[in-house]
Amino acid sequence: MSEAMQERLAWIAVDWGSSNLRAWAMDERGEVLARGSSDKGMLALAQEDYEPALLETVGDWLPASGRVPVWVCGMAGARQGWQEAVYLPVPARLGELARAAVAPAVDEPRLDVRLLPGLCQHADPAGRAFDVMRGEETQLAGLVAREPGFTGLVCLPGTHAKWAWLEEGAVTRFATHLTGELYRLLASQSVLKHSVADAELDAPGCREAFVAAVRDAHAEPGRFGQQLFGLRAADLLDDALPSGAARHARLGARLSGLTIGLELSGMRHDLSGAAVTLIGSEALCNRYTLALEALGHDSRRLDGEAAVLAGLGLAQADQRRQKGGNL
Amino acid sequence: MSEAMQERLAWIAVDWGSSNLRAWAMDERGEVLARGSSDKGMLALAQEDYEPALLETVGDWLPASGRVPVWVCGMAGARQGWQEAVYLPVPARLGELARAAVAPAVDEPRLDVRLLPGLCQHADPAGRAFDVMRGEETQLAGLVAREPGFTGLVCLPGTHAKWAWLEEGAVTRFATHLTGELYRLLASQSVLKHSVADAELDAPGCREAFVAAVRDAHAEPGRFGQQLFGLRAADLLDDALPSGAARHARLGARLSGLTIGLELSGMRHDLSGAAVTLIGSEALCNRYTLALEALGHDSRRLDGEAAVLAGLGLAQADQRRQKGGNL
Repeated sequence: MSEAMQERLAWIAVDWGSSNLRAWAMDERGEVLARGSSDKGMLALAQEDYEPALLETVGDWLPASGRVPVWVCGMAGARQGWQEAVYLPVPARLGELARAAVAPAVDEPRLDVRLLPGLCQHADPAGRAFDVMRGEETQLAGLVAREPGFTGLVCLPGTHAKWAWLEEGAVTRFATHLTGELYRLLASQSVLKHSVADAELDAPGCREAFVAAVRDAHAEPGRFGQQLFGLRAADLLDDALPSGAARHARLGARLSGLTIGLELSGMRHDLSGAAVTLIGSEALCNRYTLALEALGHDSRRLDGEAAVLAGLGLAQADQRRQKGGNL
Repeated sequence: MSEAMQERLAWIAVDWGSSNLRAWAMDERGEVLARGSSDKGMLALAQEDYEPALLETVGDWLPASGRVPVWVCGMAGARQGWQEAVYLPVPARLGELARAAVAPAVDEPRLDVRLLPGLCQHADPAGRAFDVMRGEETQLAGLVAREPGFTGLVCLPGTHAKWAWLEEGAVTRFATHLTGELYRLLASQSVLKHSVADAELDAPGCREAFVAAVRDAHAEPGRFGQQLFGLRAADLLDDALPSGAARHARLGARLSGLTIGLELSGMRHDLSGAAVTLIGSEALCNRYTLALEALGHDSRRLDGEAAVLAGLGLAQADQRRQKGGNL
């Protein structure tokens, strides 16, 4: 990084997950000066490896002197991570995550690292179930940073898809579905692995196969296990399918639709109201948009990277305000 | 085997699956003279390996001279097996499986091998879905051998659990659920692997955890993906659970209940009538009995080994009758 850019560096944003870390050099106005990433996720690191891993990725951005705030969300704050930052119980105000952040000890004097907390939910008679999130709360905070006082239903698709109910900028309830992990296990480890392939929905017939599967799983969620084996049986018997790679793409699109349709079936009582706000990558959110549309529901999308940066920025700003108030 | 027993040997029964083979030396009256088994299942064998693998297991049973009928069901008859025996389309009369058997070429003159067909089902407007079975049709034939003209709903729990509708000794429809495979994948390959352990239901609290999970998945099958992640969250948060191995057993029992409850939810419209006939091992059928009971349904059990032997015996007898008729 050039010296001029180092001078503009105001803070560093880090999303540190189980399998990788992504970092952004940020200026005072929230603009991204540089990006970095590494495959040194939480699962690959012992406690003492975190600071070196961080420096490998962001060391070049640091000015010769001065202390740079580094705001981190995600699994680095788990018990098996760098240092545990608690799970805040819901209801939790998303503008106040910074107040539960922890500062792990570091050797490098130019680093001022803060790990943000996750959220947890205890089972209760009102129908809440045990649940946890770590990382997604910061994306939700990003939504609130952009739309203060936000109220509505938010979905963050992924390996463990999260649904969160927000009221006036606070999470009141949330629900995690194992959707992405189910898809991945079934596509790569089950009897279906020879019958399905990851499919782009713009390949011929894949969008239709996906949408039909969403509708099938949504209509008869109890038949999910049967619908899964049906992919194998269709591969053996269905003459209407194309052959070769196109056949496996079609069945892969159907598998994706079944897993997402099952999830939406579980959310059916919550989907009657306003548009769902999706937060995540374009490709995955597009699938959810399509699936929701097929069931008659509106949605809109906020980019996942934009959300995490806005959420970390909100934490940064909140801490500076707190500091200011204490002066 | 003693010479006296070799003299009593009338035929050999073989259940040859994907991952192992089991063989029984049978006398004229259907009594078992000896048992053998091997881990040389279909997945471990090339076409030319089948005869040697069979001889390793049953070679000692063969008399010095004379030809012994060997009736085989299961994956040895798949396209990737010894030789393909077709999938018979439903409706299919279970007393007539032998008529679609194939006889692979063998070098050993004392072997007269017959591979039984599987069953297939094509999608149709009446709600049938694409489906296949190979091996279970012989257990169903065993039920019909014991109760000629059987009419009713039969369930064969397992990796790929099969439900079959029988009318007057014929299969008119069937449905496969990926239940056992889902359990295995989730327990050993997913994020849940650190939270669950295989559990005996007579361990403290496990029966109750299993039954509650059956009811939960049955009541809200769309929340299956959420109920799964809930096992991980409960492991992190639920103070009411015991600690250590007992905790993981409790959560493992719940995982088992969720997968079986999902399956029973899918079958809910078919479970209103008479008792379900379960065919399989005692341990697994006991889980299904318990789950069905929790939902108000009766069941009875036929032992899986007894069923396969009766089914292969029915095929043997049918072929002898056919031969007799041709004389």
